[in-house]
Amino acid sequence: MDKLASLCKRRGIIYPSSELYGGFQGFWDYGPMGVELKNNIKAAWWKNMVQEREDVVGMDASIIAHPRVWEASGHVEGFHDPMVDCRESKARYRADQVMVYMPKNDDGEKFLFAFVEGDPEAIAKKTAKMTKGAFTPDDCTVEPLTHVPLELYPRIVSPDSKKPGTLTEPRQFNLMMSTRVGAVEKSQTDAYLRPETCQALFYQFLNVLNDSRQRIPFGIAQIGKAFRNEVTPRNFTFRSREFEQMEMEFFVSPDAAKKQEWLEYWRDERFKWYRSIGVRAEKLRFRQHEAEELAHYAAWACDIEYEYPFGWKELEGIHDRGDYDLRRHAEYSGKKVVYRDDLTGETYVPHVVETSAGCDRTLLVVLCDAYAEESDPERTVLRLSPVVAPIKVGIFPLMRKDGLPEKAREVQQLLKSHYTVFYDELGNIGRRYRRQDEIGTPCCVTIDHDTLEDNTVTLRNRDTLEQIREPIGPELVGHIQRFLDDMAAEK
Amino acid sequence: MDKLASLCKRRGIIYPSSELYGGFQGFWDYGPMGVELKNNIKAAWWKNMVQEREDVVGMDASIIAHPRVWEASGHVEGFHDPMVDCRESKARYRADQVMVYMPKNDDGEKFLFAFVEGDPEAIAKKTAKMTKGAFTPDDCTVEPLTHVPLELYPRIVSPDSKKPGTLTEPRQFNLMMSTRVGAVEKSQTDAYLRPETCQALFYQFLNVLNDSRQRIPFGIAQIGKAFRNEVTPRNFTFRSREFEQMEMEFFVSPDAAKKQEWLEYWRDERFKWYRSIGVRAEKLRFRQHEAEELAHYAAWACDIEYEYPFGWKELEGIHDRGDYDLRRHAEYSGKKVVYRDDLTGETYVPHVVETSAGCDRTLLVVLCDAYAEESDPERTVLRLSPVVAPIKVGIFPLMRKDGLPEKAREVQQLLKSHYTVFYDELGNIGRRYRRQDEIGTPCCVTIDHDTLEDNTVTLRNRDTLEQIREPIGPELVGHIQRFLDDMAAEK
Repeated sequence: MDKLASLCKRRGIIYPSSELYGGFQGFWDYGPMGVELKNNIKAAWWKNMVQEREDVVGMDASIIAHPRVWEASGHVEGFHDPMVDCRESKARYRADQVMVYMPKNDDGEKFLFAFVEGDPEAIAKKTAKMTKGAFTPDDCTVEPLTHVPLELYPRIVSPDSKKPGTLTEPRQFNLMMSTRVGAVEKSQTDAYLRPETCQALFYQFLNVLNDSRQRIPFGIAQIGKAFRNEVTPRNFTFRSREFEQMEMEFFVSPDAAKKQEWLEYWRDERFKWYRSIGVRAEKLRFRQHEAEELAHYAAWACDIEYEYPFGWKELEGIHDRGDYDLRRHAEYSGKKVVYRDDLTGETYVPHVVETSAGCDRTLLVVLCDAYAEESDPERTVLRLSPVVAPIKVGIFPLMRKDGLPEKAREVQQLLKSHYTVFYDELGNIGRRYRRQDEIGTPCCVTIDHDTLEDNTVTLRNRDTLEQIREPIGPELVGHIQRFLDDMAAEK
Repeated sequence: MDKLASLCKRRGIIYPSSELYGGFQGFWDYGPMGVELKNNIKAAWWKNMVQEREDVVGMDASIIAHPRVWEASGHVEGFHDPMVDCRESKARYRADQVMVYMPKNDDGEKFLFAFVEGDPEAIAKKTAKMTKGAFTPDDCTVEPLTHVPLELYPRIVSPDSKKPGTLTEPRQFNLMMSTRVGAVEKSQTDAYLRPETCQALFYQFLNVLNDSRQRIPFGIAQIGKAFRNEVTPRNFTFRSREFEQMEMEFFVSPDAAKKQEWLEYWRDERFKWYRSIGVRAEKLRFRQHEAEELAHYAAWACDIEYEYPFGWKELEGIHDRGDYDLRRHAEYSGKKVVYRDDLTGETYVPHVVETSAGCDRTLLVVLCDAYAEESDPERTVLRLSPVVAPIKVGIFPLMRKDGLPEKAREVQQLLKSHYTVFYDELGNIGRRYRRQDEIGTPCCVTIDHDTLEDNTVTLRNRDTLEQIREPIGPELVGHIQRFLDDMAAEK
């Protein structure tokens, strides 16, 4: 992960926000390559979820909405994380992320070692070292701190401390960021930066329904920023305080069997989409939520997980939201929010199947999945699918003489309105290939002395390193398209 | 404007935010058609400003940054609007937007009628009516309230009052929206929602410079949300509290003559871009800033103005920002922010030429410019350039029988991965055309009984209403592309 973060900074993919000022925890900036990669991911999602479908339409709502929205959604009352502090180290943790080794045969006196969830083996080793071997994980079960009774807290050794009893009791902490809207103090309104994008798709449901001439079942999709005052932002961009979501709410009839079909349909569609942008199948899995994890109104939820360098974690959630949200907005607004089926005459509050993905998280997955270090030739390469690669075509004159740069510029002119291209004439050709490998450019076009004789160029495949020759001319655009399509299909 | 706003709501272009809760002043949501239109505008800007250029790279920074950024930028100290209240009507105004009729021959007793800037003729009429004809604009000059001495305030009749002396003195009001970041009260940091996107391009200048292998002159471009707690959001989406900017900062050497060339180059490029997305030349003009309007560090600034229904107003600004921003960030961060020209060995703080456009404002201009009511045939039509139109192709079977829908579905399959298409089989063909006219769909493809015989379809041109026949098949994709390109070129 450190290597990936370093590559991201070096090659203009992701920078710490405000780095000139020492950074700002939980915030990240996308550099010249990062913004192209992110835009490509968003465009691929939008095309797949909205533009190529007849039963899903898009929206783009404001980040700040009427504050009643967040009362209706339940966030003002209930969007809390339990938080504990370590009195000694001054570190702060989310209580549900702190794990505690509980001895199987407890004598009532043993220290209970706590750690922040992550790679269990590494943590066990570190803990064993810290306790000079007195501690053996095999004799323990692991429990989240939130399941450990308060009377045992005096025996817990906190993750960054060496003595027990330094953890405070968990406190509830609302994760919404608030601000004030309006021109003078006395008439200002407390408002919130949305902690999730989906609510707009509920409070604008009636407008969209009326204007788009859709009939149930249909969906509304949105891409946009959301904000959460995370207690412990971490794992690079995995958990940050400002992030971008890609959410779709699919409105269905309350019929349980039909809804179940749609839940499973969308779960499978979303899996296929990650495959379509090149994520390897063996790094993806479903995780069905247990009954006790479900929201009170939900009968079903499933995550798509990815195996990050720090373990299997959520990438996307597919959720049954029931009719909870529409009912709540009806209640809090005093408006009637129902659907009338003009064929059957039925009137009902629709149920909702949600697909909720993170754009930054998808980008992180795409990077983790593509990152490779190779020895022959020695290179770092991002094996990005051409669908998402920031630069599609590198264009190099073999040398800076003999008219090769001029010819290369011609090729650039020919291609630049069709593909994002990068022209490079500095340094030896091997180094130029490496630079493009590092940012995942799938195709490099080289103009050499043969070009001057037969008007052909070489196309180099980033993954196989194979080179083929194609003629310069309008048909080169199509050849490159097929070249990229073939590479994308092999992912 | 009211008609346009009504069309926008009816056809899913723009909704008031949180409308279910009575709206939220200064915030707007883009509906299914609006989001496509907005995405097309952003994509056209990005392609023109970043992807097709070698000397501009992109970025996408977080909305919330380290709070020191806004001290360095001068916003904490100086980003204020003067504001006045009317004690009687309780209305609130930006003092620089309140205009006062000053009698040329003042007897020291006449009432001074104030109005909120807008259409001067309409206001004069209203004022004349209000004063039962006692008032004649010809005998007056018009001064902004900020130029009127305080001792005259008792004689001013405020815009929403009928008696004089109800306006308060102007007070300064900081427009930045703030929030708090961090997990517990005592360690929380005050942070701001950025009031402009450009600062990130300054505080990440060194990172981008190092990673992108650019040499001066070069630019960094960004599209993103910004927030201003406007005293009086108004004119539909023209001035709102949450909005999206499209800004580019072009870094040049301090040489004044060279900088001047770049200022004029970018002014002209930006004008051309508005033309390229179909905005009529006669509705656009330059407005050079007077010396007293300029920031203290700037020698030159020029607006591109558009003639909105409420008058000529700013659409985009092209600014000389000097070396002010980079110097301030160097000072506040304690870091060295300079550029070293490795060819000449010169080291200097670059100067900046800025192009600052609003995405929402561009969208509003595009809508105002495209909106037309016609009598033959009677229709409301958005004459949008195909470059930005939300739907490129409407697809209609003439009737819902004889296999026409099936054939139309074939055409839809053929086209949908190339263009945003809308399939419609409901209602008579004339009404279906009108519906597409209202959202600016440039091309409608109709499948009729001739199609079944000769496998051709009609393409209808939204603007000329001409219909041509083209055969169904892979070549239809190209025919439609030329059809759209021709329409775009005629704008």
